[in-house]
Amino acid sequence: MSTRKPILPRGLTANPAFSPAVQVGELLFVSGQVSQDNRGNVVGVGDAEAQTRQVMARLKTIVEAAGATMQDVVKITTFLTDAASYPAFNKVRGDTFPHNPPASSTVIVAALVRPEYLVEVEAVVHLPGS
Amino acid sequence: MSTRKPILPRGLTANPAFSPAVQVGELLFVSGQVSQDNRGNVVGVGDAEAQTRQVMARLKTIVEAAGATMQDVVKITTFLTDAASYPAFNKVRGDTFPHNPPASSTVIVAALVRPEYLVEVEAVVHLPGS
Amino acid sequence: MSTRKPILPRGLTANPAFSPAVQVGELLFVSGQVSQDNRGNVVGVGDAEAQTRQVMARLKTIVEAAGATMQDVVKITTFLTDAASYPAFNKVRGDTFPHNPPASSTVIVAALVRPEYLVEVEAVVHLPGS
Repeated sequence: MSTRKPILPRGLTANPAFSPAVQVGELLFVSGQVSQDNRGNVVGVGDAEAQTRQVMARLKTIVEAAGATMQDVVKITTFLTDAASYPAFNKVRGDTFPHNPPASSTVIVAALVRPEYLVEVEAVVHLPGS
Repeated sequence: MSTRKPILPRGLTANPAFSPAVQVGELLFVSGQVSQDNRGNVVGVGDAEAQTRQVMARLKTIVEAAGATMQDVVKITTFLTDAASYPAFNKVRGDTFPHNPPASSTVIVAALVRPEYLVEVEAVVHLPGS
Repeated sequence: MSTRKPILPRGLTANPAFSPAVQVGELLFVSGQVSQDNRGNVVGVGDAEAQTRQVMARLKTIVEAAGATMQDVVKITTFLTDAASYPAFNKVRGDTFPHNPPASSTVIVAALVRPEYLVEVEAVVHLPGS
């Protein structure tokens, strides 16, 4: 029997209505990450590659706060606001997961919660030591 | 070794092509819930807050039919048809999960399956006793 | 303690930036499948029913490569580019999962990664023998 445990990395901007990530057993479910800094400001306005790098950096912060590494990411789901962002996203995804990459779905949505956001990535992660 | 088991709350409108929720081990995967009543009629036409309340009520019915509570929800994924619905959704989400909230992703889609629907929420839930 | 293992069916078109599916414990997370053949060509241009059949065939190939069957699919998430594709998708989904169907969410997105794609389906699958 597993416990359900929120993961709250220090310094991450918090919306009290949800947790950055929640662990249950060997799995960690990570909230959709957008390109913001720790004060909630948008990073990389108009630049899909810069935004994807920031999104992956935030994902890494959460994954490591849970005691895992990016090699433990099992699945990512990506929401882009423009199909033209896909090549930049694909490049950064390749850099982020050079070996044994996760499963992945990518779709183009109408918008994200703030109009400046071009990319949102959520993840399921394996926590091998749990 | 776990079993795979559909959860079928009494009275919920059924589309024979999918299950309201399926349990595997300690996890319950809940289908995307929309704002309808038990006869399939839309509830809260044009009102994102009323629709979100109905969606969360349906989610609660399914979660409780599986023997869990809303405190056991690990992750929700929300699809809105208009970014203008986000404040109403965010308010109801906060009311629904006042403590230890789930991980969450929210995106704006082009549409949902029926044009009256403004919000759809799916969930992954921890079933601690399983 | 479970291992994390990529599933790589022979012949499936590969994007090196992600895995077709990744297994962790009793769960298999399958990447979003689109209607392409093994050389990466689009199958069923303009035909939502033909595309859904191809998507489900690809899903089946991956599920069986992992040692499971379509009866073990726990949850599917479907992204359509047009609400008008829903009846065709719903029909093929019913044919694909005639008994004990998975949980399911279906939304209409702005687009998929290639403009010819009308439907993308990702899945979570139970691997009972793991």
